[in-house]
Amino acid sequence: MFKKAVRWLNASPPRILLSGFALIILFGAELLRLPIASVSGSSMSFVDALFTATSATCVTGLVVLDTGTYFTTFGHWVILLLIQIGGIGFMTMATLFALILRRRISLKERLVLQESLNQGSIEGLVRLVRKVVFYALAVETVGALLYTFRFAADMSLGKAIYHGVFHSISIFNNAGFDLTGDFQSFFNYSEDIYMNVVSMGLIIVGGFGFVVLADLFDFRRRNKFSLHTRVVLSVSAGLIVIGTLVIFIFEFTNNRSIGSDGFGHKLLVSLFQSVTTRSGGVATVDVSEFRQATQFFMIILMFIGASPGSTGGGIKTTTFAVLVGAVFAMIRGKEDVVLFRHRLAQERVYKAVTVTLFCIGIVMLGTMLLATTEDAAFLKILFEVTSAFGTVGLSMGLTGDLTFAGKCTIIMLMFIGRLGPLTLTYALGPKPGRVLYRHSEGKIIIG
Amino acid sequence: MFKKAVRWLNASPPRILLSGFALIILFGAELLRLPIASVSGSSMSFVDALFTATSATCVTGLVVLDTGTYFTTFGHWVILLLIQIGGIGFMTMATLFALILRRRISLKERLVLQESLNQGSIEGLVRLVRKVVFYALAVETVGALLYTFRFAADMSLGKAIYHGVFHSISIFNNAGFDLTGDFQSFFNYSEDIYMNVVSMGLIIVGGFGFVVLADLFDFRRRNKFSLHTRVVLSVSAGLIVIGTLVIFIFEFTNNRSIGSDGFGHKLLVSLFQSVTTRSGGVATVDVSEFRQATQFFMIILMFIGASPGSTGGGIKTTTFAVLVGAVFAMIRGKEDVVLFRHRLAQERVYKAVTVTLFCIGIVMLGTMLLATTEDAAFLKILFEVTSAFGTVGLSMGLTGDLTFAGKCTIIMLMFIGRLGPLTLTYALGPKPGRVLYRHSEGKIIIG
Ligand SMILES: [K+]
Ligand SMILES: [K+]
Repeated sequence: MFKKAVRWLNASPPRILLSGFALIILFGAELLRLPIASVSGSSMSFVDALFTATSATCVTGLVVLDTGTYFTTFGHWVILLLIQIGGIGFMTMATLFALILRRRISLKERLVLQESLNQGSIEGLVRLVRKVVFYALAVETVGALLYTFRFAADMSLGKAIYHGVFHSISIFNNAGFDLTGDFQSFFNYSEDIYMNVVSMGLIIVGGFGFVVLADLFDFRRRNKFSLHTRVVLSVSAGLIVIGTLVIFIFEFTNNRSIGSDGFGHKLLVSLFQSVTTRSGGVATVDVSEFRQATQFFMIILMFIGASPGSTGGGIKTTTFAVLVGAVFAMIRGKEDVVLFRHRLAQERVYKAVTVTLFCIGIVMLGTMLLATTEDAAFLKILFEVTSAFGTVGLSMGLTGDLTFAGKCTIIMLMFIGRLGPLTLTYALGPKPGRVLYRHSEGKIIIG
Repeated sequence: MFKKAVRWLNASPPRILLSGFALIILFGAELLRLPIASVSGSSMSFVDALFTATSATCVTGLVVLDTGTYFTTFGHWVILLLIQIGGIGFMTMATLFALILRRRISLKERLVLQESLNQGSIEGLVRLVRKVVFYALAVETVGALLYTFRFAADMSLGKAIYHGVFHSISIFNNAGFDLTGDFQSFFNYSEDIYMNVVSMGLIIVGGFGFVVLADLFDFRRRNKFSLHTRVVLSVSAGLIVIGTLVIFIFEFTNNRSIGSDGFGHKLLVSLFQSVTTRSGGVATVDVSEFRQATQFFMIILMFIGASPGSTGGGIKTTTFAVLVGAVFAMIRGKEDVVLFRHRLAQERVYKAVTVTLFCIGIVMLGTMLLATTEDAAFLKILFEVTSAFGTVGLSMGLTGDLTFAGKCTIIMLMFIGRLGPLTLTYALGPKPGRVLYRHSEGKIIIG
């Protein structure tokens, strides 16, 4: 029974993920098209429904219709359900792939999850899924409570709970959908330290991925983090700090964004935007008013994204760590890429660079497409494409103006961006015993 | 004696190349600052002289001062000398590195150059250098004659010869400097088929690199091309055709560029721009009037560039071939990257992807810098940076408006772009017997 399940999943997990996600999105789009989903009571266009469903399921957060004002409570629940499936569901699948089928993590790391895995039995699988869901729901519940406290000051308790639950789920899953209305995201909370801290906490924890979460929960007992956890934590921290500094410095004198704010406010806005750019997608300031250099820097952050098996997107923090390690190794003339005094297998480094290059190729292709169909500044287009690919959800304002062809391109990018790196990495895995014939080696000059 | 020379070169060829080039540029800049170099008779600013000298030596062609009208004949000869040193000199060095020191090409390819190499003797080295210079001068002489014929129709014979020699050297070396005045490049010749064919011929042949040239000259005797030559020829042809088609289609209805021209003229302009974008740098049309999608596509072409050991820049056609091969291998789930039924060593593929990623990093960094110092549209900045890095010389018009900091950034980019990929690839070479201690292998999840 267990072996059969594994063989079924192992046959072509990327295909299963892909078709499963596509079906969920189509089903969600149909639900959103029901007249009871929109406040106007009329059925929206299929492409807008598909856009919204894709954005929710791929936890992106780019919206063509304002979530708060356009959709009814029914519509909100559909969106929320899609976010949960897309966030936690994907997290579960990714964890299953990574831990059980691919055996890509070390024995030590597998020991961390020993009791929940109990390999070799179908119960182990079920227990793992249950654990992922439990962690996610636990964090979401805490988030909902914390949000509700804050919202209760501004609205009735019922509405506060409703908003609390919605935003907690949306933001923990790095979906970036909000109910604030008029595409305002969290602009009104830019100075609210409580809201900032809660939201950043949810985004960061959601972006860690299950393996790291499990490792964190287990820390007291083992007193030692796995290599994977250490890489994720340090890269995440490093990127947040660097991002904050860059945004802070570049925008310090920009009066269209934070130039006229106080020092502390400037720092808080920079910190929040640094955190949200790597997948969160809610914003406390209008990023279209940032300087070009800041926006380009944010594009790089969006491309890097969150950590593997998390609710976030991008090429992932670990991949980025490998790239940085590879460049350092190159500069210092070393052959081995070393992270925290651990050498990485050459094959894995190669995988990281190739996946990254492929992702750059996708972003370039998407940008080319959008540049032909849309009439907008190039940076705005590049920003939108990277945001879709990295399932971030930030926008310089292009989403609302997209043509039909542009919407289709962004839908494809969100879909590819959510599944891409994982399935790509999976597809890149060695397939032993399949090489029947190898060509003789040839040489060409490179560089 | 030979061994000593090899050991000296082998000790740190990148450092020798780098310091040699820097010295030549500084010397050239000082010459250009002499009052006799400029028509006005006054000494130009150091940064402009440095910019011009770097652009000439790195065969880039970006100009802050119009070559034809600002400089005297003395100035032109200085520029021409720098182009020759930067073009042929670099070609010689690169060939030496590739063929003799690095032994990066196969036995078969080495047999092609057997008589000129005569390995193990200092005479072989000298003969090789002589052969490179001979090939280059032969092509340049033919080019000068062909240009002179055409120019003689428009000006006195003396001036025609002067212009013929200058443009032949400038364009064979993919330098992109011209004497037409007012930053007009070859705009007036956009319909002139003779000028188009001669110029494209020089750019293409100059962009092949010495190994391919030698292989072509020897074809009759051996009747078979090396793998390297086949890759260079087919990738060059493919990129020219694809480039022509994309420019033709994207600009077909653009009245600011070729929209109002006849079908044949449109095709000729598209073809020429496709050829020149991968390093030539002269243009028959104002690229700043192209559509954004076309300009972005040209940025990609500029980044790819010409072939190794040639007068052109970029990451090189062979590197691009390896990247395409790697993506195909990935998609088809194969482990080997295969080109023309020859498998490439994994180590070499890894080198190609890493060098490319590093180059992308440099372009991004340069763009960030320029975006902070210059007040211009993002695409214009990205175009300028890639043009400098790929030593192309095309511009959307930013060069003339650069701030002091911007000029310094572009100078650095031209320098790094010319030396970068080669020295990087060199530095990436395996250094046997130097690994004293390897860390234990660690595993992290990627993607
Ligand atoms: K998001
Ligand atoms: K050039």
